[in-house]
Amino acid sequence: MAKSLEVEHPKKAFGWAAKDTSGHLSPFQFSRRATGKKDVTFKILYCGICHSDLHMARNEWGMSTYPLVPGHEIVGVVTEVGSKVQKFKVGDKVGVGCMVGACHSCDSCADELENYCPDMILTYGVKYFDGTITQGGYSDIMVADEHYVVRIPDNLPLDSGAPLLCAGITVYSPLRYYGLDKPGMHVGVVGLGGLGHVAVKFAKAMGVKVTVISTSVNKKKEALEHLGADSFLVSKDQDEMQAAQGTLDGIIDTVSAMHPLQPLIGLLKSQGKLVMVGAPEKPLELPVFPLLMGRKLVGGSCIGSMKETQEMIDFAAKHNITADIEVIPIDYVNTAMERLVKADVRYRFVIDIANTLKSSS
Amino acid sequence: MAKSLEVEHPKKAFGWAAKDTSGHLSPFQFSRRATGKKDVTFKILYCGICHSDLHMARNEWGMSTYPLVPGHEIVGVVTEVGSKVQKFKVGDKVGVGCMVGACHSCDSCADELENYCPDMILTYGVKYFDGTITQGGYSDIMVADEHYVVRIPDNLPLDSGAPLLCAGITVYSPLRYYGLDKPGMHVGVVGLGGLGHVAVKFAKAMGVKVTVISTSVNKKKEALEHLGADSFLVSKDQDEMQAAQGTLDGIIDTVSAMHPLQPLIGLLKSQGKLVMVGAPEKPLELPVFPLLMGRKLVGGSCIGSMKETQEMIDFAAKHNITADIEVIPIDYVNTAMERLVKADVRYRFVIDIANTLKSSS
Repeated sequence: MAKSLEVEHPKKAFGWAAKDTSGHLSPFQFSRRATGKKDVTFKILYCGICHSDLHMARNEWGMSTYPLVPGHEIVGVVTEVGSKVQKFKVGDKVGVGCMVGACHSCDSCADELENYCPDMILTYGVKYFDGTITQGGYSDIMVADEHYVVRIPDNLPLDSGAPLLCAGITVYSPLRYYGLDKPGMHVGVVGLGGLGHVAVKFAKAMGVKVTVISTSVNKKKEALEHLGADSFLVSKDQDEMQAAQGTLDGIIDTVSAMHPLQPLIGLLKSQGKLVMVGAPEKPLELPVFPLLMGRKLVGGSCIGSMKETQEMIDFAAKHNITADIEVIPIDYVNTAMERLVKADVRYRFVIDIANTLKSSS
Repeated sequence: MAKSLEVEHPKKAFGWAAKDTSGHLSPFQFSRRATGKKDVTFKILYCGICHSDLHMARNEWGMSTYPLVPGHEIVGVVTEVGSKVQKFKVGDKVGVGCMVGACHSCDSCADELENYCPDMILTYGVKYFDGTITQGGYSDIMVADEHYVVRIPDNLPLDSGAPLLCAGITVYSPLRYYGLDKPGMHVGVVGLGGLGHVAVKFAKAMGVKVTVISTSVNKKKEALEHLGADSFLVSKDQDEMQAAQGTLDGIIDTVSAMHPLQPLIGLLKSQGKLVMVGAPEKPLELPVFPLLMGRKLVGGSCIGSMKETQEMIDFAAKHNITADIEVIPIDYVNTAMERLVKADVRYRFVIDIANTLKSSS
């Protein structure tokens, strides 16, 4: 018979978990594995709230098991390291993002692209090598193989730096991979949410001209004045969109809702690249003729590798890039989730774990 | 008042033209411009029949003007060159493909990608710089700016080499641009028609392993034994398709009919590329999640630049690549069009212009 989650591992842990498909989060006693030879254990200080936490808590992707502790934008301070850990020592500031394991024998792993490993292990809600289910960062401590731990540079704030571990790498990686990172290029960012707002910051730091494309003119002032975008297009304004045809080298499309691709493809120059990082549930309509006529492409990208995540964090620290956040106590998390559904946050909630998560046991 | 096409230019020309949307072709007297300083005039020996000739003859793309002389896979022998022509002399074997002009001032032209110039001038049916309408290769002579003329190497047969000027470059260019030309790679070719069969030959000559993907098992023997493909997948056979998931570095999709993309995307490895060179009339369904999960892309490609066309022809000559053709006399052209509709040709019709096109005047 399986042990209860509270005692399956030797380390006591405490967090907030969803217990069923309502997604309602509540206090939860569980356990973490002992620090293995290559493991890093750290006290969690902050954890960002990603929209996928909400999907997973409510089993909207049909893959959740309960209880489920969400959270994959996790930062903290190392409290213990295994005997074979080489990169970290007690007291280091570290982070864990969306994944904590991979097979390390497939082609993707051989290319240091653990994020595309078919057996990649997500930070929460899936089976780990030892057969136990991974649990995320809405909790007090974390244990992870050092390969999946990134170093947080001293000058990067831990609270506003946390969301970079998912939102940041998700937009940074495609800017690099699809070659949309060259100074003087002109890149569009569709959707100004958790991902979009950091996409603007990264692209600007790379020397790229940025146009934000949004359904809502309300975000124009914010995009131009606060985030430093160079221009703004209201996607519903056909005249504006028409005037901008053929002007972009690439687009990072962060929108998960159903939306038409044709107007976006039209904004691209020849050889332009439309990169999807949000995943609409149903297929989108792809007009093929415009792809042919300009040798354009529609590609996808999913988070980033560990190597790239460290590179992204170092780049962010160097260029003072952080997410715009609203820090909340853990007992506000269910309200935060409700607000997230309505996109009522600028732009990311971050839970102040260290100061607000208190075990009631 | 505009001059009649028969006398608008000084050079008498004769060909077969569509006179209306029936697309029926019949003898037609017209004229060609005098050989300009940078022009090459050549006697046409062979002209391939491309499926787009049929679309244009019947105005299926809504852009045709009549009379319309189709043909953009044109080869022949130079009879006259302008005073400033540098690359050609009388007696040279030459060819003209899909285009005869471009603006030479846009970004695409600056990148030597005339094929993506918004003002690119097609070989037939569109307005040339002098205001006259271009006419294609189902005719006795051709006059073209030397920039749009390619040299046909001596060892390349003119009849079976002609289709390379459209079908060949259309598949050669994306193999190069999308990096699907590395020895040891594994590339799929969807559809075994005029484009597909030369795609197999080019990919094999590049050292690439080739899998043909077709709706019809009838083409299996031909693909493997005659064309030299390494393997064959029947796209309707779900077991076969399932077993081949994640095995291809890229796919050249030559199919213009509506067809599902999801099974093809599934065949790709991570970072795999699905390249469309056929243009279905209506948008196709694009599942976004599989693109994200493997950082895959769906791209387009349209013929190729002049520089690349010469490179392709030289590569073909070096590797003895030609199209498989059925040579026909000009008076068979309407029957050939009917057969083309039914895909009843292996794999390209080529009109023997020199021996069968006789002016009745």
